[in-house]
Amino acid sequence: MKFYQIDFKPVSKSGKCKSNQSLLDCAHQSGPGIVSICGGHGRCGCCKVQILEGAVSEPTESELKVFSPQELGKGWRLACQTYPEGDVELLVPPGSMTTMQRLQIEGLEIAVIPEPLVSSYNVSLPAPSMSDLQADAERILERLKNCNTIDIEVLKKSSPLLRSWNWEAKVFVRGNEVVAIGPQSSRQLGLAVDLGSTKIAAYLMDLESGETLAARGVMNPQFAYGEDIVTRLSLVLEKKGQGRLMQKLVIDELNRLLVELCTEVDAQPDEVVEAVIVGNTAMHHLLLKLPVRQLAYAPYIPAVKGALDIKARDLGLDIAPGAYVHILPNIAGFVGADHVAMLLSTKEIWQKEDLVLAIDIGTNSEVSLIGNGEITSVSCASGPAFEGAEIKDGMRATTGAIERLRISNDVVDYVTIDEAKPVGICGSGILDAIAQLRLAGVVDKSGRMLNNHPRVRDNKDGREFIIVSEEERDGLPAITITQNDVRAIQLAKGALRSGVQVLLDTRNHSSEEIKRVVIAGAFGSYIDVSSAMAIGMLPSLPLNRFEQVGNAAGMGAKLALVSRSKRAEAQEIASRVHYIELAAAPDYAKILVKATNIDEY
Amino acid sequence: MKFYQIDFKPVSKSGKCKSNQSLLDCAHQSGPGIVSICGGHGRCGCCKVQILEGAVSEPTESELKVFSPQELGKGWRLACQTYPEGDVELLVPPGSMTTMQRLQIEGLEIAVIPEPLVSSYNVSLPAPSMSDLQADAERILERLKNCNTIDIEVLKKSSPLLRSWNWEAKVFVRGNEVVAIGPQSSRQLGLAVDLGSTKIAAYLMDLESGETLAARGVMNPQFAYGEDIVTRLSLVLEKKGQGRLMQKLVIDELNRLLVELCTEVDAQPDEVVEAVIVGNTAMHHLLLKLPVRQLAYAPYIPAVKGALDIKARDLGLDIAPGAYVHILPNIAGFVGADHVAMLLSTKEIWQKEDLVLAIDIGTNSEVSLIGNGEITSVSCASGPAFEGAEIKDGMRATTGAIERLRISNDVVDYVTIDEAKPVGICGSGILDAIAQLRLAGVVDKSGRMLNNHPRVRDNKDGREFIIVSEEERDGLPAITITQNDVRAIQLAKGALRSGVQVLLDTRNHSSEEIKRVVIAGAFGSYIDVSSAMAIGMLPSLPLNRFEQVGNAAGMGAKLALVSRSKRAEAQEIASRVHYIELAAAPDYAKILVKATNIDEY
Repeated sequence: MKFYQIDFKPVSKSGKCKSNQSLLDCAHQSGPGIVSICGGHGRCGCCKVQILEGAVSEPTESELKVFSPQELGKGWRLACQTYPEGDVELLVPPGSMTTMQRLQIEGLEIAVIPEPLVSSYNVSLPAPSMSDLQADAERILERLKNCNTIDIEVLKKSSPLLRSWNWEAKVFVRGNEVVAIGPQSSRQLGLAVDLGSTKIAAYLMDLESGETLAARGVMNPQFAYGEDIVTRLSLVLEKKGQGRLMQKLVIDELNRLLVELCTEVDAQPDEVVEAVIVGNTAMHHLLLKLPVRQLAYAPYIPAVKGALDIKARDLGLDIAPGAYVHILPNIAGFVGADHVAMLLSTKEIWQKEDLVLAIDIGTNSEVSLIGNGEITSVSCASGPAFEGAEIKDGMRATTGAIERLRISNDVVDYVTIDEAKPVGICGSGILDAIAQLRLAGVVDKSGRMLNNHPRVRDNKDGREFIIVSEEERDGLPAITITQNDVRAIQLAKGALRSGVQVLLDTRNHSSEEIKRVVIAGAFGSYIDVSSAMAIGMLPSLPLNRFEQVGNAAGMGAKLALVSRSKRAEAQEIASRVHYIELAAAPDYAKILVKATNIDEY
Repeated sequence: MKFYQIDFKPVSKSGKCKSNQSLLDCAHQSGPGIVSICGGHGRCGCCKVQILEGAVSEPTESELKVFSPQELGKGWRLACQTYPEGDVELLVPPGSMTTMQRLQIEGLEIAVIPEPLVSSYNVSLPAPSMSDLQADAERILERLKNCNTIDIEVLKKSSPLLRSWNWEAKVFVRGNEVVAIGPQSSRQLGLAVDLGSTKIAAYLMDLESGETLAARGVMNPQFAYGEDIVTRLSLVLEKKGQGRLMQKLVIDELNRLLVELCTEVDAQPDEVVEAVIVGNTAMHHLLLKLPVRQLAYAPYIPAVKGALDIKARDLGLDIAPGAYVHILPNIAGFVGADHVAMLLSTKEIWQKEDLVLAIDIGTNSEVSLIGNGEITSVSCASGPAFEGAEIKDGMRATTGAIERLRISNDVVDYVTIDEAKPVGICGSGILDAIAQLRLAGVVDKSGRMLNNHPRVRDNKDGREFIIVSEEERDGLPAITITQNDVRAIQLAKGALRSGVQVLLDTRNHSSEEIKRVVIAGAFGSYIDVSSAMAIGMLPSLPLNRFEQVGNAAGMGAKLALVSRSKRAEAQEIASRVHYIELAAAPDYAKILVKATNIDEY
């Protein structure tokens, strides 16, 4: 029996594998969780990996069914069907990872040289005396190059603090301005926030090392006031005081997150000397309490496109009182700073190929087609169905959520997060379900559910397909996919697919010309791309053209926080984008209807 | 009978004068109020004027007593003794003007080319449409050169306003930032404030023309919490919440003044797009809520010396929400931005001569000795006695205040403001009284009041000199100068004179070498300089070396508001000043004791 070294990327795990063990078995033994529904029989196609280095066994018949020759040529394999024949280095794409692994991916370090906007300097000052009457501020400024002013809120605190620190201090400078002051032991922290319509992701960063110290994700508290952004904008326009409320909800939540993140690493919120926030245009406007009437109605004009540097105190964000919040630029319509952040963090991917589709899937989805030096973008109102909302048994991707499923005849195989008893279905599971129902002929192209399967039943609320029956749940209500669920997903994927199609039509490309599809967003990163293609949500392309990159908007926010060059790049990207207003595209209604079919476009 | 043309400067009044009319009679007839106590008999010496052009009668005996040959040589005369012998142009110094005239002087236009920090541009924008999706902010910025950002508070208002104005707007730009926006009819206004310990003077300016549109003076509401600045600082240090209170008192008062000033000229507070505030270091720190402990105790260190640009909203000042307040630089100790402003507005005077003494008299007085390219400054805690506080019958310079008086044997001649019945004595009257008492031998060099005059009496509160008796007031309490009043003035003038002496000693000059004494401040401008010299408050020098310039600090604030060059000059002046801490001067105690005598130093 031989033993081989198996290295799993990008999770940095490795293990010894016997020559008669599959890569899936080895993964189970060595740590990186890989999804498997069929139990390693090559049927479900969930355990896709890409061999980067080393020799492995020949593809089995199962694999020949799942992969095209090109994909096999690029090293794509099913982990359960593949045996090592030497040391192997392999990539586990996010879509093949179990949920806990996926969350870890969010913490991957970013490959950028830290170049923060805020620099810090330790100063040791002589104490004033009757023969040295220099004012406190000038005593500091004299020791700093090209810095000639101190923020008024910093000034308000400095004099007693300098004396309590015995004139030894750390001074934080941004441009020509002192924005914070602390004892020499102070850390130099930053806060990056991806403010999504549904979820808020916040990252506490070390600005000197570029390291992510802590990360948290929570629901956007505005969600309770409207699942989609149009509802929230309408509320603000209809009811006085709602704009103030929407802002307060988010700021309070950010301040709460800030305290949690800081507590986690034993830091103080006032050690955070810069923040970057990204969000779509609606989130952006609600955060800044900008007027939204002109954004809510055609021609959908943002109050501002350019990047903004705002004093944190003007937003009510409780970081260092003199610190700035940088808001990345918007593009147009609802395509906001979050999409700029996504394009920023995926630039290395899209600038290498000639035609790239970059999709950030969320309650509002942004799509860009990039090629020939041009970036063209649209915004799609995909709604919250992908996130499990508006779905009868939909739920967030948490313990007990069915995240993958396969239907074989009258059996439904599924895996749940944490391998717990099933309590509902999260986004990736819903997508699998619709795809499997379509493949099984239970749902037709128009989205109608037929009563042609033993698990289909009609009840007072309409027709539904039983995923987990009452009996299988020991008497609890069945987990089902209803006709309405199918309709909700149809509308969501139709909105997205129509956006892709308008981009292709506008730029005179066919979908086959797309060399790479970059999919970002919490949901988009964890879906089974094959399922998404099966329902016609994504163009049908070889599997290896897809890259699921996780929360790329959050990553972009981190990059812009840590690096001034990246911040400049974001500006440059935003200025290059050509925006298309979907509603104004020729034949849009026709395209949307076609895109709503559960079928290839 | 011949008629001559008489032009009175600087009040821009003129009239026809018969050859047998005195210049005083002509003034009475033509408008400019000139003070006269003795009724035109050449006895009181109040109606001093300077002949600038034209022939007049020879000096009378009365004038030979009042003026030195040098003074007569420079054209100084008593208006009541002088008759025109041709067309005459003459200067009425502030000290010779009646109060109403003095107030008008505050409105004199400043001779500076307007060069405001904020520029305005009228823009006519195309309305957005489905084929022109540019964001609102960029729609504006695109039309402005070198301007790339819009203040967040301006952004919050712009989108609906632009639409209501049909895309015709006036945009106010400061540096690279839009700080305000209004309809094209908006005016471009500024607010200049001299924040004194006792009085606040506020000026509403037209930034385009440099014109003063309206001016108001009020008591500083902090005065109720402590007449001198040390008391106020102590209060802030001793009692929590007092710092906040002190700031709120002033800001609320400024906002009230702002509304009054705007109402007066039919303007809106948000048409005010820039403000400049000057004050001594204590007023400066209390306004900005800067820490004061290090300022209140030796070595008296300000939190900051340099000029500051602060968003008006960070101060709570209700001008245009994106506008800045510029705070002129401090010097050191208690010598603050108000003295810099005074030096700025009097620069044309002091830079022409080789040794100039510049005095700003107030509750806290600042004195600079300027010569040989050097400026040396001290701060004197003169207290509020000069402003009529701490004086038994002291009052502000308002209707019924005795503002000038002369004692001839047992008769007291006086003039009151508005020629009303006397109700008390204001600062200039008190100074005259002490000087006259000293000249009459009622008060000795040490300040003791002797019982050697029919108007002196002893009562339960001590000795006093009757200015207006109960009988003369028809039974109302007598208006008197008490022994305590004399002591209060002694302390006040001693503080000031000792400061002057330390400057002279430090720079190795005798008082005779002073070529010019510039006296600023509401009180200092209206005193009879002869009286001030008689009590040893000012060095004894020929009368024509004194120049009383009114509220020079307020004038400096106006200059810095209207002109960016002047603002830069202020910075340069502040950086040139060599500050001396009085308490640390050699032999200061000895100097102070000597300066307290009612006698020449």
